[in-house]
Amino acid sequence: MSILVVGSVALDTVETPFGKVSDVLGGSAIYFSAAASLFTDVKLVAVVGTDFPLEQLDFLRERGVDLTGLQVADGQTFRWSGRYDYDLNVTHTLDTQLNVFADFHPDLPSGFANADTLFLANIDPTLQFEVLQQVKQARLTMMDTMNFWIQGQREALSRTIESVDIVTMNESELRMFAGASSLLTGARRVRELGPKALVIKQGEYGAVMFDESGYFVAPAYPLEEVRDPTGAGDSFAGGFLGYLDKVGKLTPQTIRQAIILGSVVASYTVGQFSLEALRSLTTDAIMKRYEEFRNFTLVEPV
Amino acid sequence: MSILVVGSVALDTVETPFGKVSDVLGGSAIYFSAAASLFTDVKLVAVVGTDFPLEQLDFLRERGVDLTGLQVADGQTFRWSGRYDYDLNVTHTLDTQLNVFADFHPDLPSGFANADTLFLANIDPTLQFEVLQQVKQARLTMMDTMNFWIQGQREALSRTIESVDIVTMNESELRMFAGASSLLTGARRVRELGPKALVIKQGEYGAVMFDESGYFVAPAYPLEEVRDPTGAGDSFAGGFLGYLDKVGKLTPQTIRQAIILGSVVASYTVGQFSLEALRSLTTDAIMKRYEEFRNFTLVEPV
Repeated sequence: MSILVVGSVALDTVETPFGKVSDVLGGSAIYFSAAASLFTDVKLVAVVGTDFPLEQLDFLRERGVDLTGLQVADGQTFRWSGRYDYDLNVTHTLDTQLNVFADFHPDLPSGFANADTLFLANIDPTLQFEVLQQVKQARLTMMDTMNFWIQGQREALSRTIESVDIVTMNESELRMFAGASSLLTGARRVRELGPKALVIKQGEYGAVMFDESGYFVAPAYPLEEVRDPTGAGDSFAGGFLGYLDKVGKLTPQTIRQAIILGSVVASYTVGQFSLEALRSLTTDAIMKRYEEFRNFTLVEPV
Repeated sequence: MSILVVGSVALDTVETPFGKVSDVLGGSAIYFSAAASLFTDVKLVAVVGTDFPLEQLDFLRERGVDLTGLQVADGQTFRWSGRYDYDLNVTHTLDTQLNVFADFHPDLPSGFANADTLFLANIDPTLQFEVLQQVKQARLTMMDTMNFWIQGQREALSRTIESVDIVTMNESELRMFAGASSLLTGARRVRELGPKALVIKQGEYGAVMFDESGYFVAPAYPLEEVRDPTGAGDSFAGGFLGYLDKVGKLTPQTIRQAIILGSVVASYTVGQFSLEALRSLTTDAIMKRYEEFRNFTLVEPV
């Protein structure tokens, strides 16, 4: 079993009420890989500039992430700078320098197209669709997106949404895409396009999922301090899809388990800055918090 | 078993994206009584003006609500006017006319002080404390409050909080009262004052509860249309406390069941304007949705 992820590698500068870090490891493909590699084999496709400190990816290589699809292009690495205030659900982007990411074109090394599972992180939906066409025999495909593509590339985005098994979005993005304030209505509109399941991220409120079996709600883990929400969504997706790739079957039950595991991984991610928590996260710690999550919602019949 | 509720009776004018209603039945004591009387006997203490259409309370009387504590005072009934936009979590208060409610002083008719359970709806915390002193042998006491009292009557409010078993607040009110952005921190600070449990209302995200057994999360019911959020919190409290009064014991398990039942009742309330849904709600409908709620969060071990 293996997952191919196509996304970004970034150097992030992040300020929160708990501190500030500069030019630290970030990007959707990195958070996803760090999370998914706790469950299964991961193949990464992304781009960095010649300034990128490649040794920072050693921990991913040691965890079995195949980095042969990481292009090193002439120029600077993608940089993102943001601030979170006490309302950690709201991201204030201070600066975005796309740099080499602006001309990113995913090239799949030999063998990568045979991945069992595909995650299309939040990149240009035209590129997402190109990759999807090359990984035709994947048993499970999932995509993320953001308001930028919803507003500017609606047609290309819809084509990609029509072609994947699972879509994930933030709730505000779903409302924007579907033109509906009700998540139920929005989810129905997305699922009518083709996807089997829609996973809606709700930040500090957790995540909800709509599929053929109905509706599922996963709370967020109650943390005393959310130190840095960056990467929460991508590490959620990594835990979620990593588990589904490992078990090799998509059923109403495995998808629910996957959502809780994704939530567990994300809860560790946001407890520290950058990739700090994900570097040292263990399966034991994940399983312990998984059982806590189950207990948060456990209620007997009346 | 019986519950005494002290709160407001109002004539509400409410506008939402789904319509507008004028001078309709409302108020915390009414929503609470309509919900709680689905489970147990209710005694109501409140005040209305001479303009109040008393026949509108017939459905409560038929459901066994004891209205002998409803004072009719010279003057106009409390009127509230508000608007909700598509973000139904945000209440825009357009007008508040306290009228006879401004001079409300709870008088307990004979026998009312023997209630097993007490709900102090959102009124002046000094009055809440007075009532609490009169209903000393109640086995279970619960209170609600709001930002107005947190800002203006902090000392009186804290005294009441120290003296009840269960506190309920909106999450923004908890953050304001506790001076903490983390719900976990806020809940700890409230529970340190004395209450056994804190139930935090999160609007469209449901409710969370902190007690000695830990943390419990109840989702909100996914509705295509939230037509009118007015009364959601008070009907939640009515379902919650009505069930706890009926079963007569406060355990980690009954409190969780009560939260789901409260959420079920609130989900019906907000599906229609004013008390429309609560008038005709049946136990069968409640139990059906209770099982749906359980299924929303059901997940197997991994």
